[in-house]
Amino acid sequence: MRLTRYSDYSLRVLMYLGLRRNQLATIDEISKAYGISRAHLMKVVHELGRAGYLETVRGRGGGLRLAQDLDAIRVGDVVRRTEANMDLVECFDTKTNTCRIESACALRGVLEEALEAFMATLDGYTLADLVARRRRPLSELLSLT
Amino acid sequence: MRLTRYSDYSLRVLMYLGLRRNQLATIDEISKAYGISRAHLMKVVHELGRAGYLETVRGRGGGLRLAQDLDAIRVGDVVRRTEANMDLVECFDTKTNTCRIESACALRGVLEEALEAFMATLDGYTLADLVARRRRPLSELLSLT
Repeated sequence: MRLTRYSDYSLRVLMYLGLRRNQLATIDEISKAYGISRAHLMKVVHELGRAGYLETVRGRGGGLRLAQDLDAIRVGDVVRRTEANMDLVECFDTKTNTCRIESACALRGVLEEALEAFMATLDGYTLADLVARRRRPLSELLSLT
Repeated sequence: MRLTRYSDYSLRVLMYLGLRRNQLATIDEISKAYGISRAHLMKVVHELGRAGYLETVRGRGGGLRLAQDLDAIRVGDVVRRTEANMDLVECFDTKTNTCRIESACALRGVLEEALEAFMATLDGYTLADLVARRRRPLSELLSLT
């Protein structure tokens, strides 16, 4: 069980922009800071923009910045958007399910409850919590001024 | 985010044997009941045997049965064994992690807490809960006598 790399990168981009506050950042800069390819980041940034989490300022000197306050962006909401598939087992998708015991089996309900507990935990945190000052400041590791 | 097919099949095999109580079941029979290939089931059964959840009676008229009581088998424990990789994001494995901000980032801690909530929910259920009688008995769907 793991999150997609896409979710991982999305959260990292939001954390980067969160540390930048209102300063603009570029994809090149984020790519260098994390060692993630531009191609991966382009897709991530596009989708985060569509979701309303970040905005792009075009033209010379342009770049990216958060479109919402740090404490308005819930980690759970981001993960719900970036994880395309939260079907823990086959029977979560009744359209494609082939398991014959689905109508009587209690497993799906148990797994759904566990998933709710997982997401409820993530809903208890915002982007502000992720970038809060720790022993070693994140901004230092990302070489931000 | 999803569980491996391997975890899904492992839980299904245990449920099948749970409904059989002390009667022996064969891999062929389980394969037909769920429409899962014998090859997949062989591996699942082997590992469930190694984990001490089921035992094999060899020879003519032999087969499989649970090696523990239904209410002694916790769903969480099964999933911990069958999910080879619970590294939700890259930095969970410090040996292979390439993310540079790991030492300062709070994301890992948040995801670990969410994973604990997920597993704690599963630990609240046993195999007995999964096969408990529901509107339509599981045994009927599996054509068990």
